[in-house]
Amino acid sequence: MMTGQLEVSRARSIAGPVRLRDAFAYRQRPVDLSAIALDASDELGRWQDLNASATLPHVVAQMETSGVLDNLRKAIAGEGEFVGPPFADSDLYKTLEAVAWETARSGANPFPDFLKTSIDLLSRAQREDGYLNSHFQLPSTPERWSDLRMGHELYCAGHLIQAAVAWNRANGDDRLLTIARRVVDHILDVLGPDGRVGFPGHPEIETALMELYRETGDERYRELAALFLDRRSHLPMSGPAGFSSAYYQNDVPVLEATTAVGHAVRQLYLSTGVADLGLETGDQRTLDAAVRVWTDAIENKTYLTGGQGSRHRDESFGDAYELPPERAYAETCAGIASFMLSYRLLLATDDARYAFEMERVLRNGVLSGVSLDGEHFFYSNPLQMRTGHQADAEDSPAERLSWYGCACCPPNLARLGSSLAAYVATRDERGLTVQIPVAASFDVSGEGFSARVCTETDAPYGGRLGAVIQESSGTWRLRLRVPAGASAVAATVNGEAVPADITGYVEIEREWVPGDSVIVEATVPVRAVHPHPYVDAVRGTLAITKGPLVYCLETASAEREAILEDLRVTADGVRAAVPAPVPELETTGLVLTAHEVKAGDLPMYGEEPAPTASEPVRVTAIPYARWANRGPTAMRVWVPEL
Amino acid sequence: MMTGQLEVSRARSIAGPVRLRDAFAYRQRPVDLSAIALDASDELGRWQDLNASATLPHVVAQMETSGVLDNLRKAIAGEGEFVGPPFADSDLYKTLEAVAWETARSGANPFPDFLKTSIDLLSRAQREDGYLNSHFQLPSTPERWSDLRMGHELYCAGHLIQAAVAWNRANGDDRLLTIARRVVDHILDVLGPDGRVGFPGHPEIETALMELYRETGDERYRELAALFLDRRSHLPMSGPAGFSSAYYQNDVPVLEATTAVGHAVRQLYLSTGVADLGLETGDQRTLDAAVRVWTDAIENKTYLTGGQGSRHRDESFGDAYELPPERAYAETCAGIASFMLSYRLLLATDDARYAFEMERVLRNGVLSGVSLDGEHFFYSNPLQMRTGHQADAEDSPAERLSWYGCACCPPNLARLGSSLAAYVATRDERGLTVQIPVAASFDVSGEGFSARVCTETDAPYGGRLGAVIQESSGTWRLRLRVPAGASAVAATVNGEAVPADITGYVEIEREWVPGDSVIVEATVPVRAVHPHPYVDAVRGTLAITKGPLVYCLETASAEREAILEDLRVTADGVRAAVPAPVPELETTGLVLTAHEVKAGDLPMYGEEPAPTASEPVRVTAIPYARWANRGPTAMRVWVPEL
Repeated sequence: MMTGQLEVSRARSIAGPVRLRDAFAYRQRPVDLSAIALDASDELGRWQDLNASATLPHVVAQMETSGVLDNLRKAIAGEGEFVGPPFADSDLYKTLEAVAWETARSGANPFPDFLKTSIDLLSRAQREDGYLNSHFQLPSTPERWSDLRMGHELYCAGHLIQAAVAWNRANGDDRLLTIARRVVDHILDVLGPDGRVGFPGHPEIETALMELYRETGDERYRELAALFLDRRSHLPMSGPAGFSSAYYQNDVPVLEATTAVGHAVRQLYLSTGVADLGLETGDQRTLDAAVRVWTDAIENKTYLTGGQGSRHRDESFGDAYELPPERAYAETCAGIASFMLSYRLLLATDDARYAFEMERVLRNGVLSGVSLDGEHFFYSNPLQMRTGHQADAEDSPAERLSWYGCACCPPNLARLGSSLAAYVATRDERGLTVQIPVAASFDVSGEGFSARVCTETDAPYGGRLGAVIQESSGTWRLRLRVPAGASAVAATVNGEAVPADITGYVEIEREWVPGDSVIVEATVPVRAVHPHPYVDAVRGTLAITKGPLVYCLETASAEREAILEDLRVTADGVRAAVPAPVPELETTGLVLTAHEVKAGDLPMYGEEPAPTASEPVRVTAIPYARWANRGPTAMRVWVPEL
Repeated sequence: MMTGQLEVSRARSIAGPVRLRDAFAYRQRPVDLSAIALDASDELGRWQDLNASATLPHVVAQMETSGVLDNLRKAIAGEGEFVGPPFADSDLYKTLEAVAWETARSGANPFPDFLKTSIDLLSRAQREDGYLNSHFQLPSTPERWSDLRMGHELYCAGHLIQAAVAWNRANGDDRLLTIARRVVDHILDVLGPDGRVGFPGHPEIETALMELYRETGDERYRELAALFLDRRSHLPMSGPAGFSSAYYQNDVPVLEATTAVGHAVRQLYLSTGVADLGLETGDQRTLDAAVRVWTDAIENKTYLTGGQGSRHRDESFGDAYELPPERAYAETCAGIASFMLSYRLLLATDDARYAFEMERVLRNGVLSGVSLDGEHFFYSNPLQMRTGHQADAEDSPAERLSWYGCACCPPNLARLGSSLAAYVATRDERGLTVQIPVAASFDVSGEGFSARVCTETDAPYGGRLGAVIQESSGTWRLRLRVPAGASAVAATVNGEAVPADITGYVEIEREWVPGDSVIVEATVPVRAVHPHPYVDAVRGTLAITKGPLVYCLETASAEREAILEDLRVTADGVRAAVPAPVPELETTGLVLTAHEVKAGDLPMYGEEPAPTASEPVRVTAIPYARWANRGPTAMRVWVPEL
């Protein structure tokens, strides 16, 4: 309930990662990060706290141990060998951004030395002309701007901008902003309207430039973002390694794109930038282009977990329905990018489907990326891990690793974790909408109203979402998004029934008074989910879902020793599953009866059908995001039907 | 039947790609290439002819157009930019080898200018110290021998050796052999017993060195092969791009390996070299190591087509049972390498299973690599191609391409095609064994016997294999391998029944007289093949096989318009399939009744089971190797069961 914290945050309102600037195309608007406090009892609030207490210190420490800060020291010295992938600077920027949001949230910078060191190194490394990229500043690396396809200079600049904006918002520290603006001024010289005609092989700077525009009001940034988007497909860009132009989303003009193609993170950050541009310019064609790509991705190329990107080879989207559970790439960063894109489209459309999608990917395909100890991470998030899997180094390990040679995901999780509160609700001129069921407190105000609301929920396991008005003046609308996966929903205001829509919101507009309460009670059954028959890779299987959560079986799920690949389920068995706590995973599982067949001795290819004789075995399905927290394990989301 | 050709070839006996040297561990021995003539009526004979008339001219021409010969010109000039992957020289060597075998087979070099140009350029490019590799000889490339992992210098040298041996055998032209031996002498200096401790990241030179030893008798070559094998796993070698030591088969000592791991072509060439060493030294541990890897690959990691390598990312074997049909990598070169490995293990063990495997991969996973016009090729050989597949440049196209940026496969097919005859039979002290049912003539002689035999067959479509003795003196044993996929077999000699084993051979030892005939009549049913339940990716599907052939459906297979993904089959329907000619594909298909469901409108993830209401549709399944010869197409080997 109410604490002093909120009073503090109210003292200075702090925008989150997305700020409203020109309201042309916003049908919903961001709520300030400082206006929402997730409760420590909430599942997402616990992740936010774990992120602060474990992930952030771990990630900050890695900036030294992984060599990222040393790269800057080498750039300053003008000698030494670069360590890590060419875009390693972005690890630092994402970490700085994460610390900024944590500072905004908690009111104090938990890593003052790290910030000091980082800004000192970045200031000294930045060249006279504004250029800053430790990889390209070292000897024996290619010329600056010589490899826009894979060099990631603009990608790194994008993350620098986002970190800079975050610090400027968090506590008014504009030192990074000064560095970032000098970088952007340099980019404007080199690649701006009067410069060389180029654009980033890895999008990300577009959304960052839009945020820099939102933060500063300098229209050159918005125009540069628009320019980078507009140049796509009008210049050749393909290769290396035989990657086609679609890999870089350079196959069709951005405004004509109809499908999600190529490298998933590139595509999703690109569409995020497109959405940002559309939000600020109000251009419907621009917004429509982002919606089309999102729709193709979600309807045809998204895992049940919300994960995206079917292929390891090029970290890319596959064909429609090409969704192998084993070897699913479903990069954690792609999940985060999908979340960010959905959020912007939610702002643009006020359509609840984006909120449902945000929650799906967050609670499944994103949170699977981090361990319960907060210090281990998945890069790829497969939906199946085979008994006896032979991991090839970092490629699809059977448990989370503490760091990666290509460490894009851990600091990306950290920045999402520390800014998460800003994403769970939106506002408009009429009031507040809770977009993801959470226990939290919200400050909201608009023309003619001002209020404080507290929510509580048993999400993601149950279907209850309640709100109590703590303070209020004026008439305004409260909307609560109905918990996901509901088969029915009932809602009351102060005990009186109000309409509720399982595909959207419970909404009530009135002159609220403190003590008013809204209760949403959704019936959230366990579901036995069939894949579309075109998803060949999971034919003949069922997945178990309840509410927003996808469940899985792992080796430890069976009450007695059994080969995971020998387990079968029935739809009726799934639907009869009963919740049960799994204390060691800090979660609630679903206990059901599975059936063990003995298939091991069959020939690889034979004429006998698969055996159906089976023995029952009790299993406890666990939320997918919690898998592999009991050591390396086999796992599967899609379980064969008996 | 008998032609003058054989008289010519008898004049000088020409060994094929594998020659017998020390007979320590040979239970079967190679037959000379000059002693076998495939008949033009034979399916494999037709491929051999197509290879000569279309593929070889195409591949030879590509040596100029793709820049491979220009790389040598640049190396001679000491300036210019290298074109292609670092191992592009190997394209030339494989092409030279292919032309050598064609010269041996036909008696005349069809490309004298190409040979002259190539030898001239190679002679001039070779450095004083023997070094020869156009990539590393150009400025702005790394130091020689600085990247044994991915530099492919030893791999290229291996292919040079094989080309050199082939020419020396084909017509006694030892010019390439002189060049190759100078290269090997240089390698001995740099990496030999007294040199730096290194070994090839991409095996291939091991089997080549063994052949050079067989050709020259110089034991230093055998010892260098043994040294390269022995050094594996005793030196660190991992990366780049996060590939583990298993990618390079550097995770365990060669003699301790129990599983097929990592890059499939590397693994298979490595095991081929291991087998060659074992054959020549008679060391059972060495042979056992090759057998173990082969067995793991075949039993757990091989597609129904004989293709190997499940993953695009690192062109590697997957986990056991990880065999996705879509995005199967199953590189053509891996199929060829598997064929070469099986042949050596057949020599070592006299076990028919290796002959069955040679035929399976040859007639399915290898021949799928080349088009009916002989000028288009697949690099990867998936078992499924989706309707509307979006090809990413060279990655998994929906029809064969005329060339590849990484063009390892086309010249590999060419060298196999021109040396194929040497692989279809083996000999021992007792006589001749026809290992792959073909129509051909064979010359065979041994201690106390000499003979000429002609065979005829309706393989691969039927189960008949006949042999007629043309000439004979002495007592000797004729063995005919029973056609694959037989459910029953009967055999006669001059009309009298003799024993026959469907898992092996019909064998008769007698004093043959001209006119004696053997007839093998196998019953070869159409089979409905179920995958092992652990092969999740094809659960609930059936494949259609008959004899050695795997069949598939492609878009044009249905008699009326139907979405391939909507087709279903039943096991009974498959077994009732009737052969029918498919003239445009120069093959015999299988006509059966499939069932069309309408699945398109279902949601991606829902609670309704897949529809079973269906309408019959007649389809003509075609041999897998013939797919995509009617334009880009959807295709599937594994068809869902109704």
